[in-house]
Amino acid sequence: MTVKAYGAHAGDRPLESLDITRRAPGPHDVQIEIAFCGVCHSDLHQVRGEWAGTLYPCVPGHEIVGTVSAVGAHVSRHKVGDLVGVGCMVDSCQGCADCEAGLENYCDHMVGTYNGPTRDAPGHTLGGYSESIVVHERYVLRVSHAREQLASVAPLLCAGITTWSPLRHWQAGPGKAVGIVGIGGLGHMGIKLARALGAHVVAFTTSESKRQDAEALGAHEVVVSRDPAAMAAQAKRLDLIVNTVAAPHDLDAYLNLLKRDGTMVLVGAPSTPHPSPQVFNLIMKRRALAGSMIGGIPETQEMLDFCAEHGIVADIEMIRADEINAAYERMLAGDVKYRFVIDSATLAA
Amino acid sequence: MTVKAYGAHAGDRPLESLDITRRAPGPHDVQIEIAFCGVCHSDLHQVRGEWAGTLYPCVPGHEIVGTVSAVGAHVSRHKVGDLVGVGCMVDSCQGCADCEAGLENYCDHMVGTYNGPTRDAPGHTLGGYSESIVVHERYVLRVSHAREQLASVAPLLCAGITTWSPLRHWQAGPGKAVGIVGIGGLGHMGIKLARALGAHVVAFTTSESKRQDAEALGAHEVVVSRDPAAMAAQAKRLDLIVNTVAAPHDLDAYLNLLKRDGTMVLVGAPSTPHPSPQVFNLIMKRRALAGSMIGGIPETQEMLDFCAEHGIVADIEMIRADEINAAYERMLAGDVKYRFVIDSATLAA
Ligand SMILES: [Zn+2]
Ligand SMILES: [Zn+2]
Ligand SMILES: [Zn+2]
Ligand SMILES: [Zn+2]
Repeated sequence: MTVKAYGAHAGDRPLESLDITRRAPGPHDVQIEIAFCGVCHSDLHQVRGEWAGTLYPCVPGHEIVGTVSAVGAHVSRHKVGDLVGVGCMVDSCQGCADCEAGLENYCDHMVGTYNGPTRDAPGHTLGGYSESIVVHERYVLRVSHAREQLASVAPLLCAGITTWSPLRHWQAGPGKAVGIVGIGGLGHMGIKLARALGAHVVAFTTSESKRQDAEALGAHEVVVSRDPAAMAAQAKRLDLIVNTVAAPHDLDAYLNLLKRDGTMVLVGAPSTPHPSPQVFNLIMKRRALAGSMIGGIPETQEMLDFCAEHGIVADIEMIRADEINAAYERMLAGDVKYRFVIDSATLAA
Repeated sequence: MTVKAYGAHAGDRPLESLDITRRAPGPHDVQIEIAFCGVCHSDLHQVRGEWAGTLYPCVPGHEIVGTVSAVGAHVSRHKVGDLVGVGCMVDSCQGCADCEAGLENYCDHMVGTYNGPTRDAPGHTLGGYSESIVVHERYVLRVSHAREQLASVAPLLCAGITTWSPLRHWQAGPGKAVGIVGIGGLGHMGIKLARALGAHVVAFTTSESKRQDAEALGAHEVVVSRDPAAMAAQAKRLDLIVNTVAAPHDLDAYLNLLKRDGTMVLVGAPSTPHPSPQVFNLIMKRRALAGSMIGGIPETQEMLDFCAEHGIVADIEMIRADEINAAYERMLAGDVKYRFVIDSATLAA
């Protein structure tokens, strides 16, 4: 099946309208008519070739929501007409310890929603900036939000789960003080989710201008990280920090805010290294610096169900497909509250 | 009471025989006739002024074993004639969450066995390179090894607990693969303890010449870290790494050996930073880089009891007090298997 998509033929070329093919659904496949697709920083890095190994044509997009339009004969979890989502992966080995633990995101053979290996043409996966996608049912999530919320659900599939997974793994909840560093696509979800989980939420931003926004998102406290006195007042107060800032920065300033046995989890990888953290700050309170990468399928479903139950969606700005190149520039400038979402109906325009 | 000690009057002067005073035991104090004191790298750094804030005269030593010679009226845990030990701390606030958790080592007001604040003359604590010491009973450990093993028990009070605490906290035991990086004073204890706890032990050394020694200490496998193929063969195999090497080195080479959710614990702080670890190595398997500092009093007692039960002591080389300056030079050259211990009877010579 040939469908409309948006992608690039090279790292130095803008995204443009493309025709791509999707396979006919196999026995375990779900065919999805895509309604909306969120725009993630990873999309930009991948399509521009800023990460090694980008294959072209490159069609980004891994915050996909839509409606099931066909299912294979053996599909049991989804049926035609269901609202569903697809996140950052569309396959994994399904047999390793990670896959068996429902942490397919850590599987050595995890296949990304775009730029991953596949037998489908053109030999690598093509993502959600497209009218439809065909995905093994295991990697398709149920969406129980109302249909009119669907566009705002899309970013939950990457920004949502990327913050949810560490919040849950490191047990954010009542009685815990949780810091969220950075108030962008990931951070705004981190604040909402940590708050809904019952934690005391401290948001960190470089900009005083984001204070009101952070409070509106649910932060109990907002700290401008450039204010030494405000940072000092948080020393040894936090159980967990989810640090969403990928730009290289001083990690020690945040490590010192952790209590004994506290953990700072990095969810973004900088293109050049952070300054090396001081080991003494780890040793003196048995602190940890950890990483976390998106999340597994069961916890993604848990997050979507939790969000539906608690009325949580992302804050988005809807764009047409032909606005994507301009949207990338605005993303780089931090000029989005907090996620662009492509209206897939505009792909055919 | 005036007693003989060994210490230095300045960072650039050798250690020499000194007379120091010890307070009369208060109601909760234990007076200990010191039999042996281990020689730790920290002693050298502190006495030479390589760490900020060394107060002189400086009498190092925090691997103390001996016999109780007097007790205060309210002391209930120890009696005259008992074999006891004192480690890295002699006081703490006794009221904070860390102290109440038995993790006095993380108390903000922990008082080190030397160079810590005290009302005793000369205003800072003086350590175990001395004939006797007076310590609040809370910080005095029972030693149930045989008396003739006492010298080899001394290093358990710092080198032992510093490796025991992370091994226990991160649950080394049957079914777990544990790496020990560095085979010195700390590392040789790490190998013995991890083995006795039932873990599969992989020792890492820069030197092929240490292979047989590491095996004799209990390592199931020995990896020469300069051998890329041997390192690659350990990729994603370890649940926990206790890294005892304080010299700056490539942490990524070890982080990559951790399984999903594995932790590398640093127990030494480098004088100049390690090269900054790559965040991607943390993110891609939800790994953590943590620190750990000595251990609390209850876990130190647990470790001593475990070692007595399992016949574990340190491998030592006994020295006279007047050999301490030469011993420091040999320590810096890595020429000790694996801990120098001062025979306190030689202090009066
Ligand atoms: Zn993403
Ligand atoms: Zn797998
Ligand atoms: Zn020590
Ligand atoms: Zn305390």
